[in-house]
Amino acid sequence: MIDTTEIRRFVPTPEQYAWTFGGVDPVMRIRPGEVLGLYTEDCFAGQIRTTSDLFSRSCEYPFINPQTGPFYVEGAEAGDTLAVHLIDVRPARDWAVSTTVPLFGALTGTKYTATLQPPLPEKTWLYQVDRERGEVTFDALDSPHEVHLPLEPFHGTVGVAPAAFEARNVLVPEAFGGNMDTPEVRAGTTIYLGVNVPGALFSLGDGHYTMGEGEACGVAVEGAMDTVLTVDVVKGTFCEWPRLESDEAIMVAGSYRPLEDAFRIAHTQLVTWVASATDMSVMDAYQLVSQGARSRIANVCDANYTVVAKIPKRFLPGGVPWLDGAHERVRERGRAVLAARGASS
Amino acid sequence: MIDTTEIRRFVPTPEQYAWTFGGVDPVMRIRPGEVLGLYTEDCFAGQIRTTSDLFSRSCEYPFINPQTGPFYVEGAEAGDTLAVHLIDVRPARDWAVSTTVPLFGALTGTKYTATLQPPLPEKTWLYQVDRERGEVTFDALDSPHEVHLPLEPFHGTVGVAPAAFEARNVLVPEAFGGNMDTPEVRAGTTIYLGVNVPGALFSLGDGHYTMGEGEACGVAVEGAMDTVLTVDVVKGTFCEWPRLESDEAIMVAGSYRPLEDAFRIAHTQLVTWVASATDMSVMDAYQLVSQGARSRIANVCDANYTVVAKIPKRFLPGGVPWLDGAHERVRERGRAVLAARGASS
Amino acid sequence: MIDTTEIRRFVPTPEQYAWTFGGVDPVMRIRPGEVLGLYTEDCFAGQIRTTSDLFSRSCEYPFINPQTGPFYVEGAEAGDTLAVHLIDVRPARDWAVSTTVPLFGALTGTKYTATLQPPLPEKTWLYQVDRERGEVTFDALDSPHEVHLPLEPFHGTVGVAPAAFEARNVLVPEAFGGNMDTPEVRAGTTIYLGVNVPGALFSLGDGHYTMGEGEACGVAVEGAMDTVLTVDVVKGTFCEWPRLESDEAIMVAGSYRPLEDAFRIAHTQLVTWVASATDMSVMDAYQLVSQGARSRIANVCDANYTVVAKIPKRFLPGGVPWLDGAHERVRERGRAVLAARGASS
Amino acid sequence: MIDTTEIRRFVPTPEQYAWTFGGVDPVMRIRPGEVLGLYTEDCFAGQIRTTSDLFSRSCEYPFINPQTGPFYVEGAEAGDTLAVHLIDVRPARDWAVSTTVPLFGALTGTKYTATLQPPLPEKTWLYQVDRERGEVTFDALDSPHEVHLPLEPFHGTVGVAPAAFEARNVLVPEAFGGNMDTPEVRAGTTIYLGVNVPGALFSLGDGHYTMGEGEACGVAVEGAMDTVLTVDVVKGTFCEWPRLESDEAIMVAGSYRPLEDAFRIAHTQLVTWVASATDMSVMDAYQLVSQGARSRIANVCDANYTVVAKIPKRFLPGGVPWLDGAHERVRERGRAVLAARGASS
Repeated sequence: MIDTTEIRRFVPTPEQYAWTFGGVDPVMRIRPGEVLGLYTEDCFAGQIRTTSDLFSRSCEYPFINPQTGPFYVEGAEAGDTLAVHLIDVRPARDWAVSTTVPLFGALTGTKYTATLQPPLPEKTWLYQVDRERGEVTFDALDSPHEVHLPLEPFHGTVGVAPAAFEARNVLVPEAFGGNMDTPEVRAGTTIYLGVNVPGALFSLGDGHYTMGEGEACGVAVEGAMDTVLTVDVVKGTFCEWPRLESDEAIMVAGSYRPLEDAFRIAHTQLVTWVASATDMSVMDAYQLVSQGARSRIANVCDANYTVVAKIPKRFLPGGVPWLDGAHERVRERGRAVLAARGASS
Repeated sequence: MIDTTEIRRFVPTPEQYAWTFGGVDPVMRIRPGEVLGLYTEDCFAGQIRTTSDLFSRSCEYPFINPQTGPFYVEGAEAGDTLAVHLIDVRPARDWAVSTTVPLFGALTGTKYTATLQPPLPEKTWLYQVDRERGEVTFDALDSPHEVHLPLEPFHGTVGVAPAAFEARNVLVPEAFGGNMDTPEVRAGTTIYLGVNVPGALFSLGDGHYTMGEGEACGVAVEGAMDTVLTVDVVKGTFCEWPRLESDEAIMVAGSYRPLEDAFRIAHTQLVTWVASATDMSVMDAYQLVSQGARSRIANVCDANYTVVAKIPKRFLPGGVPWLDGAHERVRERGRAVLAARGASS
Repeated sequence: MIDTTEIRRFVPTPEQYAWTFGGVDPVMRIRPGEVLGLYTEDCFAGQIRTTSDLFSRSCEYPFINPQTGPFYVEGAEAGDTLAVHLIDVRPARDWAVSTTVPLFGALTGTKYTATLQPPLPEKTWLYQVDRERGEVTFDALDSPHEVHLPLEPFHGTVGVAPAAFEARNVLVPEAFGGNMDTPEVRAGTTIYLGVNVPGALFSLGDGHYTMGEGEACGVAVEGAMDTVLTVDVVKGTFCEWPRLESDEAIMVAGSYRPLEDAFRIAHTQLVTWVASATDMSVMDAYQLVSQGARSRIANVCDANYTVVAKIPKRFLPGGVPWLDGAHERVRERGRAVLAARGASS
Repeated sequence: MIDTTEIRRFVPTPEQYAWTFGGVDPVMRIRPGEVLGLYTEDCFAGQIRTTSDLFSRSCEYPFINPQTGPFYVEGAEAGDTLAVHLIDVRPARDWAVSTTVPLFGALTGTKYTATLQPPLPEKTWLYQVDRERGEVTFDALDSPHEVHLPLEPFHGTVGVAPAAFEARNVLVPEAFGGNMDTPEVRAGTTIYLGVNVPGALFSLGDGHYTMGEGEACGVAVEGAMDTVLTVDVVKGTFCEWPRLESDEAIMVAGSYRPLEDAFRIAHTQLVTWVASATDMSVMDAYQLVSQGARSRIANVCDANYTVVAKIPKRFLPGGVPWLDGAHERVRERGRAVLAARGASS
């Protein structure tokens, strides 16, 4: 039997980073119920450390956004759903960085929204991190303005191997998860990902210490992360798009373009999930989601844009085991891990 | 001199409803500093009152979404900005309704996202309103589920006469404001609208008692409203897109399609507003907005979609009079009105 | 009785230009069957005449794209359809111009696709026109390259007063027609526009001597036009979106954003038109349009983008009077006018 | 030395079909200059043969759109460009099929433009093919209408292994080519694809006997194809997006969403190509493309939408070897093959 409070630690070497979802051999085999302690490097692979390190000089596509993984989960088969529960998501450093990237971001022409205009200036901002106070400090480059922003750590990227024999770059969010860049992927949340290949092959990375809605400039406050998580497998149920569950809410992430299609995917999936898991009709669920949704824009800069449809559980019929009760199970395990850690510290 | 605690009451007769922004004669002339007490009818012109009143039988386009106004504000000239401050936004009834509307909404083909599929079923939901407890009650049509949602009243529609000699249907949001359907238009907020014609000619309506993010089914919990507001004019400054200011945040509403263009408009305007009103450079403002934005999707169903870019004032340089200090002035007046009302009740 | 070969000439004075569809008094009342000979000024109101006349110095919004009209058509009532048949569309000058306009066009950020990048350089190109040879000459500004392009004159803008009491700027294409910028609006074509107000109030302008697909830089080869047309009214039938008919094809123009919605509108309308006017089922019409469409992108730069769905008549069941046979009637009248003109010259 | 009139024939067995671009071992190694005679199966893998074969019963995702290949081209390295020249594209059967596919196509909600509406009916149409007369015959299911459409054979899909270690499903068009569904990929055309991996690994399939603009219902007139082609490698030049060249025109294919982004990619690339290959400035090239483009919508139904920007060579400076003169070289080889074939038949 698994000691669910024992943490199996994995820190990838640079050669072990994954640059795609799919098409990569697993770095480790794990069993449902195991607890992993993972180190994830920042999206720049740690190459940007000062305000004079510019993206285009320090980084080389496609070696951007290194992922820790993939992990082969025993017993996970195509048609199942993998539940990844984040127990703790903690900055691994006391500094972080953000940048502009030429022709990347929401407020500039890009590779896809192509224009003939020259790119915006390339800049790098360095943030100091105060983990005790829960703050990161923005320090303006061209004026004395300095301000504390709340530390709200999450993983921009988490996903499994895609369907249809695809391998996708780690900057892409889609039905397999990936680079969704949503703050909802934080400690306490369970992420449900439909399994497409044996073992599911999930990986994660892209630690964000904080981020504004939509990741407007294309880059969050990026930093390495120490993350504790556990996984479970929901047999025989397949989530077409990533679902998320916290103690308070259920959610679906939709990722595509244009942004209204991301909204449509996420909300259509949420409505039909509610209707299928309760005694509500689709039209009633449509109405209730329409009035009760607390959805957020995740990113408007990646290869696909992401919206996360979200509804508080308190608005929904009670006592529903949303995905076979998986969140409650992994949540309990997470609490035990935190308690054990607290006891030992 | 104006007694700013005296409330000038206006309840439109059905013949007085406005169905466009622009192209309509004013119902009243007012002076900056005056306080208005307005009644606004619901978006169905009060024609839907039971679950058997269906939209297509009860309502006739374009007599949808009646506006109270327009009001001619003395001294407002093209190139100025009108500040509309909402002092109190209160449900005028103890019930409200929502519906589906054939080929309207975010999760269906529409007139513009045209498909060959038949429309979804037409339904009406009736909500009970408890103003004391601050709740509206959703009552499912096809199951026993019943749940309280928080009463969060706001105006879906507020705007001025558009530029370029246009008159726009009251269901449209654009640079002149209009049917933005954002919960940010609530009591305590100042809405800044660039003035295009003498007197600005603002009107408002479309009371929402609560609404989910994006107004997915195309209709909120709709109800008549009793609203107290005051107006001011910022001379010589023109807001290209609607700006909003509360005690806590500054915001810009962008309305267009696709949804990412609404996001781009709102955030570009917010970045350049911050840069022009402070000593921050545009690139620093871009970075800070990227990390600090608390933006929300407003609607994904109207003729144009709306996103409201928002940043807390506490993240920005202090002591900035965002639009000549207009919000502080009208806010103070609002507090006096509320205090006087409290004293008299 | 109307002498349908007599041409009633109208040349607007600058004070008579219309700057909106809707909200403007008619310049003239005409009867169905009458033939008009109209002068239309170019989209710059004739203010750009040399390569050193730059748009932002020579023109002032919203006095862009002057329309000739509106004309009140006797007997046209809301719910009818106006048929405008272009008999002759002829350059009124032996020169034309094109420009870039700051933050306007398909390959630049714009007012709506807002970015933080600076605009592209502002330039003006002068074209010589050879009406005999049917050519316009492109003359590069920065190199010796000079080349003849085919003269393919059409009107970028033709429309009626919109529905729902709206008045729309003359740069906008929508259900009422307007600034569709499609080369299909040329001599020999009948444009069908649903009538929203008594008299229909149609106007036209924006002569283009030639244009590439999509009007990429936002401006065609712009020139004044001498145009002969006739009108008819199809009673009791309302076209929701502009339809076009030539001897060879039937078409529908869809105008909205994103561009796929323009495509969807145009093709959905074309499919249902074919199905309703013939014995074909909707699914068969969908299939046939899918294989037989010869549709074109019209504009990807205006307030709404336009696609024109088009299917050759030879692919469709024969002998169908597409809109009550209106095209055949006006086409015959057009031939008589051309014959009379030929005889008199 | 290669006998360039000798045709190396390859007919894949079903086990040899490729279902992705990238991630697949080559079926054959070839040398630049070799001539291949390839059989490609239709997009249904030949499983739909009568009007009672419905897509959802006959086909199973992702085994849709089988590709013939990939071929390893000796000497092709990352950073080069592969030139694939189509010498002959000929229907391999005297029948073809089209269908509707549930929740796929431009005039229906889809997996990505998700709605709550039920799918359209599923249907199959059978086309007879007359290769001598150059016609396919549409035969309506629900009425007697029958009509000949012109036989215009092309390959909907041609591509190479993508960049960034990706493997993409064969239904996707993107920078690597793929399922662009443009009629411009026909006999006489050279397709230029930037090489991302050693050997380029190109494959092709998805024969279309004819198709309307935009492939509105999601499916063309689909059939097996006998295709003769030759390849060449342009060393040291990398095409970011697929370019095409015929005797008459140069083109660029852009594939993304929304459709205007496909337009922007294609036209921006075409403008900068013209400017870099001639003495024209970017602004002059922008103007000339704006007036001279003969671009077409390719698809509005696939995972990404495609627009092909196209300008006739006669509008451009003369004597330009567009990509090192590759088209002229492969074109000459193609003529020799056709001549030899003619001589032997």
